[in-house]
Amino acid sequence: MSTEGQVIRCQAAVAWEPGKPLSIEEVDVAPPKAHEVRIKITATGVCHTDWAYLYETGQGMRARPYPLVLGHEGAGVVESVGPGVTTFSPGDKVIPLFLPQCGQCERCRSPKTNLCMKHWANTQMGVLADGTSRISCKGQQVYQFLGVSSFSQYTVVPDTSVTKIRDDSPLDKVCLLGCGVSTGYGAALNAGKVEPGSSCAVFGLGAVGLAAVMGCQVAGATRIIGVDINPDKFEKAKEFGATECVNPSEHSRPIQEVVVEMTAGGVDCALECVGSVTVMRAALESTREAWGTCVIVGWTETEEMSVIVHKLLMGRTLKGTYFGGWKSVESVPKLVEDYMNKKMKLDEFVTHTLPLDQINVAFDLLKSGKSIRTVVSL
Amino acid sequence: MSTEGQVIRCQAAVAWEPGKPLSIEEVDVAPPKAHEVRIKITATGVCHTDWAYLYETGQGMRARPYPLVLGHEGAGVVESVGPGVTTFSPGDKVIPLFLPQCGQCERCRSPKTNLCMKHWANTQMGVLADGTSRISCKGQQVYQFLGVSSFSQYTVVPDTSVTKIRDDSPLDKVCLLGCGVSTGYGAALNAGKVEPGSSCAVFGLGAVGLAAVMGCQVAGATRIIGVDINPDKFEKAKEFGATECVNPSEHSRPIQEVVVEMTAGGVDCALECVGSVTVMRAALESTREAWGTCVIVGWTETEEMSVIVHKLLMGRTLKGTYFGGWKSVESVPKLVEDYMNKKMKLDEFVTHTLPLDQINVAFDLLKSGKSIRTVVSL
Repeated sequence: MSTEGQVIRCQAAVAWEPGKPLSIEEVDVAPPKAHEVRIKITATGVCHTDWAYLYETGQGMRARPYPLVLGHEGAGVVESVGPGVTTFSPGDKVIPLFLPQCGQCERCRSPKTNLCMKHWANTQMGVLADGTSRISCKGQQVYQFLGVSSFSQYTVVPDTSVTKIRDDSPLDKVCLLGCGVSTGYGAALNAGKVEPGSSCAVFGLGAVGLAAVMGCQVAGATRIIGVDINPDKFEKAKEFGATECVNPSEHSRPIQEVVVEMTAGGVDCALECVGSVTVMRAALESTREAWGTCVIVGWTETEEMSVIVHKLLMGRTLKGTYFGGWKSVESVPKLVEDYMNKKMKLDEFVTHTLPLDQINVAFDLLKSGKSIRTVVSL
Repeated sequence: MSTEGQVIRCQAAVAWEPGKPLSIEEVDVAPPKAHEVRIKITATGVCHTDWAYLYETGQGMRARPYPLVLGHEGAGVVESVGPGVTTFSPGDKVIPLFLPQCGQCERCRSPKTNLCMKHWANTQMGVLADGTSRISCKGQQVYQFLGVSSFSQYTVVPDTSVTKIRDDSPLDKVCLLGCGVSTGYGAALNAGKVEPGSSCAVFGLGAVGLAAVMGCQVAGATRIIGVDINPDKFEKAKEFGATECVNPSEHSRPIQEVVVEMTAGGVDCALECVGSVTVMRAALESTREAWGTCVIVGWTETEEMSVIVHKLLMGRTLKGTYFGGWKSVESVPKLVEDYMNKKMKLDEFVTHTLPLDQINVAFDLLKSGKSIRTVVSL
């Protein structure tokens, strides 16, 4: 029986308030409105940013309205489409996108940026184009995190915030291309513009950092230094291409001094994949005078970092990146192709799989450093 | 009578200690040693950096040894050359360079940087390759500021820190290409990579800032906003290509908000030509989300600036530049050509000319904002 045009009742992990574990609830997902797509989510990664918005609001993250359904690294199948949707059909395999690509705006037409702002203000506040969410629970509107909400069995997104992928894509793997892996991988390739024969340092060896390591390797870097205070990450980092790893806890000197000494002057490119302003500074100061580039990948919305101006005057560049610089709608299907053609790793990021009702365990694994990515099946 | 091989007694402005006016003294200038060139300096610009080292040591500037002869924006004629010098001869018109270009090192061979480090550690400490200065006064060694010391009628520099210019160059104008004008002009062209049709903001409308304005105009920027708290600079800025000027003192809001509003989102490129960490932050925050670039041109050696990380994550780039990114030996003669062919202005920077014994007046004019550049004739 077709569900098209009907409200769908399904399960979702609802965040009722900041700082509290997610609660598995029955939610109602309204049909898509004009230029919207309703997706049956079958798998979602659990990203550090989901955790941070729940548990660190006010500590680097702006407040968002509650209740909300988190999750922004999902994959699924189109269930139905709203009026005016021409590029998606029921049954299409898709990845919903927290960063849109409308293809029409000044930014989409520029090769310099991927930061399409279509419906940006609304999705940042947890609602779609009309100012409302499509998810409700017990009669109450539930906000959609970044306009996505992949911690729900069904969700509705704007048709500029979703991309079609090939039919044989394994959704429980390619979901990771919805955020973490694309972000780290693209940071090295698009923002860092890592060059063959160059030296790199990647700070933080979670999924984003490992993807950055992979990007450095694909770009031909000959020296890739992984930096993490958790040495359990080092073996994995070497699988992904790190040539050596260092643990700041094992050094009495600041880690930037260690990296500068290891590389006789600093790395060509440093990638910060933690989101800590202290680490950002260390990353910048790990880069080589004259042409070193530091790319900030880790996320913070409210914090400030301190920069020794002279480090910049001596030829260094500091920049940030969002979603790895990828223009989302056109790039994610290509990344899926690269994975299917074994040009990039994805399976190796997945250390755990759990059902939706165990999603709080996924957060525990994340925060204890025991997982790289947990994929939740819905 | 040839002075070759002889100690030359001449006049120089000696800084005996920080914070005190310069003193005109008889100094002895030793003959050039191997790979050194002795220059009769005929004109020198007086740059804010000279003033800052004298009066702001400890406030953004590292301490240098005293006594010293300041001046790093000079021009003159080769008097004699030391053993092994093959590319200069007595009578050549030259500009001494505080940034060398040896042509041999990794950095000189790279297109990415101009930061040749030949004799760097020594010249930063006021001495030449052998660890000593060629200038003395009353039997005491006098240090050479940045290895140059253009506030002396004669000086000696390494043969990698000087460049030959065409014979008909007016030395009392092209001396400005030894520092300020080249620095600002190149910051726009080489570091900012200002594009045709773009919008720019230049913070600080002294010589460096005006040269940056000129660079923006030559690069084809269609909107060039000059920013200064001294509105007396605005007329000159418009001569150099500013399309409009704003005075932060006339606004109750932070100037970055004003610039963002004026440009409906921010400028494509902001150039900081003041050397103030507060202004640096304002410059960064004046740039456009998605692709804005902020270039730090103003000099500080010890200060730190605070950066809102989210501004970077939303696609902005922060970088610094030294001597405008020009590879010094090869570029300065080309800039002289551009001036001689009327492709760039120089005369317009010179608001005052003074004899050497009035050099403290040049500092007064600089600090009171009454001069753009004073050229001192020696």
